[in-house]
Amino acid sequence: MTVRFGLLGAGRIGKVHARAVGANPNARLVAVADAFEKAAREISSLYGAEVRTIEAIEKADDIDAVVICTPTDTHADLIERFAKAGKAIFCEKPVDLDVKRVEKCLAVVEKTRAALMVGFNRRFDPHFMAVKKAIDDGAIGKVEMVTITSRDPGAPPVDYIKRSGGIFRDMTIHDFDMARFLLGEEPVSVSAHASVLVDKKIGEAGDYDSVSVILETASGKQCVISNSRRATYGYDQRIEVHGSKGMVAAENQRPVSIEIANDKGYTRPPLHDFFMTRYIDAYANEIAAFIDTMSRKGKASPSGADGLAALKLADAALKSAKQGKTIRIQAYVLASKPDRRSPCPS
Amino acid sequence: MTVRFGLLGAGRIGKVHARAVGANPNARLVAVADAFEKAAREISSLYGAEVRTIEAIEKADDIDAVVICTPTDTHADLIERFAKAGKAIFCEKPVDLDVKRVEKCLAVVEKTRAALMVGFNRRFDPHFMAVKKAIDDGAIGKVEMVTITSRDPGAPPVDYIKRSGGIFRDMTIHDFDMARFLLGEEPVSVSAHASVLVDKKIGEAGDYDSVSVILETASGKQCVISNSRRATYGYDQRIEVHGSKGMVAAENQRPVSIEIANDKGYTRPPLHDFFMTRYIDAYANEIAAFIDTMSRKGKASPSGADGLAALKLADAALKSAKQGKTIRIQAYVLASKPDRRSPCPS
Amino acid sequence: MTVRFGLLGAGRIGKVHARAVGANPNARLVAVADAFEKAAREISSLYGAEVRTIEAIEKADDIDAVVICTPTDTHADLIERFAKAGKAIFCEKPVDLDVKRVEKCLAVVEKTRAALMVGFNRRFDPHFMAVKKAIDDGAIGKVEMVTITSRDPGAPPVDYIKRSGGIFRDMTIHDFDMARFLLGEEPVSVSAHASVLVDKKIGEAGDYDSVSVILETASGKQCVISNSRRATYGYDQRIEVHGSKGMVAAENQRPVSIEIANDKGYTRPPLHDFFMTRYIDAYANEIAAFIDTMSRKGKASPSGADGLAALKLADAALKSAKQGKTIRIQAYVLASKPDRRSPCPS
Amino acid sequence: MTVRFGLLGAGRIGKVHARAVGANPNARLVAVADAFEKAAREISSLYGAEVRTIEAIEKADDIDAVVICTPTDTHADLIERFAKAGKAIFCEKPVDLDVKRVEKCLAVVEKTRAALMVGFNRRFDPHFMAVKKAIDDGAIGKVEMVTITSRDPGAPPVDYIKRSGGIFRDMTIHDFDMARFLLGEEPVSVSAHASVLVDKKIGEAGDYDSVSVILETASGKQCVISNSRRATYGYDQRIEVHGSKGMVAAENQRPVSIEIANDKGYTRPPLHDFFMTRYIDAYANEIAAFIDTMSRKGKASPSGADGLAALKLADAALKSAKQGKTIRIQAYVLASKPDRRSPCPS
Repeated sequence: MTVRFGLLGAGRIGKVHARAVGANPNARLVAVADAFEKAAREISSLYGAEVRTIEAIEKADDIDAVVICTPTDTHADLIERFAKAGKAIFCEKPVDLDVKRVEKCLAVVEKTRAALMVGFNRRFDPHFMAVKKAIDDGAIGKVEMVTITSRDPGAPPVDYIKRSGGIFRDMTIHDFDMARFLLGEEPVSVSAHASVLVDKKIGEAGDYDSVSVILETASGKQCVISNSRRATYGYDQRIEVHGSKGMVAAENQRPVSIEIANDKGYTRPPLHDFFMTRYIDAYANEIAAFIDTMSRKGKASPSGADGLAALKLADAALKSAKQGKTIRIQAYVLASKPDRRSPCPS
Repeated sequence: MTVRFGLLGAGRIGKVHARAVGANPNARLVAVADAFEKAAREISSLYGAEVRTIEAIEKADDIDAVVICTPTDTHADLIERFAKAGKAIFCEKPVDLDVKRVEKCLAVVEKTRAALMVGFNRRFDPHFMAVKKAIDDGAIGKVEMVTITSRDPGAPPVDYIKRSGGIFRDMTIHDFDMARFLLGEEPVSVSAHASVLVDKKIGEAGDYDSVSVILETASGKQCVISNSRRATYGYDQRIEVHGSKGMVAAENQRPVSIEIANDKGYTRPPLHDFFMTRYIDAYANEIAAFIDTMSRKGKASPSGADGLAALKLADAALKSAKQGKTIRIQAYVLASKPDRRSPCPS
Repeated sequence: MTVRFGLLGAGRIGKVHARAVGANPNARLVAVADAFEKAAREISSLYGAEVRTIEAIEKADDIDAVVICTPTDTHADLIERFAKAGKAIFCEKPVDLDVKRVEKCLAVVEKTRAALMVGFNRRFDPHFMAVKKAIDDGAIGKVEMVTITSRDPGAPPVDYIKRSGGIFRDMTIHDFDMARFLLGEEPVSVSAHASVLVDKKIGEAGDYDSVSVILETASGKQCVISNSRRATYGYDQRIEVHGSKGMVAAENQRPVSIEIANDKGYTRPPLHDFFMTRYIDAYANEIAAFIDTMSRKGKASPSGADGLAALKLADAALKSAKQGKTIRIQAYVLASKPDRRSPCPS
Repeated sequence: MTVRFGLLGAGRIGKVHARAVGANPNARLVAVADAFEKAAREISSLYGAEVRTIEAIEKADDIDAVVICTPTDTHADLIERFAKAGKAIFCEKPVDLDVKRVEKCLAVVEKTRAALMVGFNRRFDPHFMAVKKAIDDGAIGKVEMVTITSRDPGAPPVDYIKRSGGIFRDMTIHDFDMARFLLGEEPVSVSAHASVLVDKKIGEAGDYDSVSVILETASGKQCVISNSRRATYGYDQRIEVHGSKGMVAAENQRPVSIEIANDKGYTRPPLHDFFMTRYIDAYANEIAAFIDTMSRKGKASPSGADGLAALKLADAALKSAKQGKTIRIQAYVLASKPDRRSPCPS
């Protein structure tokens, strides 16, 4: 079976997914849509696809699935439209920055029984997958403490920051998803501290650039997350899981693994400087998993509910940082009328 | 100049300090006191020292300084006695488990102008000293985020736990001291989560065995501490400092650095399994620094005030974990009538 | 410009090159030939290519270049035929196992002015390329001593061994090429020791499975090569270059970079277990370099002369091991009527 | 039992051994002799020892053992004198630079039944000991290929070079001993290449500064040794042993294990810059082993025969490098009238 894809949005991340679809032997990129026809054409010509409007893709008989890479504020609308159109949907995170909008969207998805997978690419990184496998294989016994370090090479433009929903919803949200993935149990409380240490303009835009978060589950498992918008040494992406019988950690990745020694010491090159090169395998695995789910008529994972749960943790963390107190997820989630299907402990 | 030492307490840590004194070319171990004369004799014979009573050491003309390694609940009394006797004092941490008792003791020290150094040995570990030097040399720019991972090979007996003052005052206190040492600025708020994951008996004794802590300073610098009472892979002691221009980290230490590769992979041996072998160099450096301070008539560091500041952080962390909220140090410290000379932000 | 390729030989390595051609935006796989039509069809269908005979590819107007992946004893004949047919040629190593046959073949290549690139894939490994770049950038000063460790995960079938030309011509030849690549100067003498330690059957087939080689250049630079046909820990491929100002080394590669710690120690997974996964990027870069050379009408590198030079070193090493003496390349090469165009010091 | 020591020679290495004796609870330094009384006095005062003449130590009743750290050309004479005087002898390597002189000396030792241990300190390095233990424990199966990398931080003064016996007898001799120690079987042939790459003056003094050596045993085990008189990155001391079931390697050692990351990459400090700091534990273990042997009336190891065997390998390697041919140890050793008690395959 070959899955026929339509790509919505031909920007940076659109190109990444187009390549993943193009290189997958079980997929074909049939059509590309973008407000800028030139961007769409650039991708379509590379993979022998057509340039179409979103409407045309919505109605097309030769499209089985769409990859949504448009601006965040269009995600929920597009998911609803394509769910109703009977297409399988892969949507870049987040579904929306507002919990209620996400809940409304997921209700449509549920009603239409559409397949929806949310783009938490890190779950598909080979190294992080190996960490998860080691846990599932019992290599470290019972999970007790998870440590996630996630630092960007450099801060994005302040314009991006302003539209991003803030560091917790834009950046830490990946770590919240990994925390849930690795803890194997939902967090019930969160304490967050947030500062502006990297760039004052980020603070002027109402956001933070440096955050530390503790999550705790009902059974007392803990997860610590450390984020910075800037690491001079590259894209710092580490995971460490401490358990009753041992520890498993994923090392940082660099483009080349050489070491130069001289009278100053032994030096290895900086890490990847961009999420696209760091996670190139993850993006390919992610699309492959989506295709595989469709082939098996299985449940897409990470699901819309996973996206919602991570967003709720982001909201709770922001509230914790702003109010200077630990937030009980339970209470917070109830207050925000949670989606009852959510795996989040609401 | 040769500093003439009296050792009070000939137990496990007493032996460590006796060896450090014995091997130091600028020091001589003159006398040892212990309630168990046999223990005192064992050490005294190794280093050509005499066995004496505490009273005799207190009055002795041939003793310049004492090392206090007796049980914790005797520390404050002994400090006061030897301060009045005009001896320089090196005291194992903590001065006392109670902030008010510490403050009273430090008032006596101040009045007598006695030299008092508190045994936070990690400041003298060669690897951590190199981390501090890298920071001071500007190698990583401005300090922003400190990460301290500190896990014991195994939990101590529950009897010890009961007398220990709890994990924050007994174990995390070392990390609070390192946090202050490395942040270069006092923490003003603390959020702590604490669980019993390792051993239910620890919980039954009213203590925790797994904790995560976030400290934040007035300028927004953050420090994350992760503790567990049990790490199957050895004594896990890591420090990482992220700054505006880079990062510096101290790696874990193992007794031998070999690697065995076979069809199961590449394996390096576990870490040190005991704090005494892990920190053998630190203990030697610590005593050397104390002697050096005496020779130079300089101010002992870490001081009693450092011990007090770490204890206050421990108390605040415990309160945070118990009450499930972030604790402002300022408020807490004021409430406990702080020592005004303290470097703690009181 | 798009280079139109014909693939000769649809076996294991043929598939690797087909994928590299298929994924390259500047290339297209037009035709595949193989004695087993089924093998050819398997590849052709994946990349939208046709199955054709070698003769048809030889005469085709729509083929610019061929990739020769047929059995070794057909390489020289095919190179000559396609050189005369005016096609650019990428040939898997070796051109032939016999120096005289290689020389005759290269004479035809020279006469026809055909472009010929020999498949020493390791020159295109990103990590080894970074080592070479560090040398060229002056990071280690003048090259003095090169150390190459190359161990296979497991010995090939004895049938393969018998047709392989022996370990020096089959396996060490890659290291001889890397030695020349990294030394930047031709070896003038070689000392080799060879044993059968892995599998007696290899010895019975007249070959060795464990070899150590020293190469020396006219200026005294040295290269040490260590080979084994079996490494339980995976495909061990290391390079280290020591120079007047420092050292540069390429680390081994593993599929996933995680570490699991427990009471037995800290374990990282074994290395790649297959040359195709280890060198997947190298094969892609290699074909890209071939295409780039064609586009620029530049000189292909590594050339036929490079293949010949490495083969001569292999012959000299075998002679050294068998006779138990150091072989001067100069003398040996003259005796074998060397190709005068060779970069080898003949 | 306390072993009472006399130290002959109060130079650099004499101080190292004095410290090892002084810190050992089962030993006491009783007397020190040196042509320069001031040097002797410096050591004697540190450890409460007397300054005496060699003659006085020879005749002393209160001396059980001597440590010989005088210039190389006095070693054999002193060994003979103190063997006859009934003292146990620890002698810095080498016994002598001349094989015949060593053989004559060892004959005296044998006749007097004196205990003689030769100072191959590396056997006592904790990391190398762990490598040996892993081999003995069967962790890597049958030993097949040993790789020894040994590079000095910087070349010694040319004056030293002239008296050193040349790089093979002065520097590589340590590696020859380690090769024998790790191979568990005597080498029967050696191929060596030697160059002057570091300092022309070393060449003018008739010596080399860069050498590569292959040793082979009767069963075909191989050992590769790589030496340079200069490594900008510190004292490079690595051992790797490849066997039928796996590999074991000892990593390089550095004074502090930190890593600094910035936009240039991840940098660890250089290695130790001096053999005394690198091998401080080895020297202590070595003296402890000597004392232990005396206490148990056991056979000292490494023995005089070990010293002789390593010297013969050094001579053979020099011959190989000079004549450009592989040297059969058997033939060479017979030609030099070998000591029949030697473990060397003579």
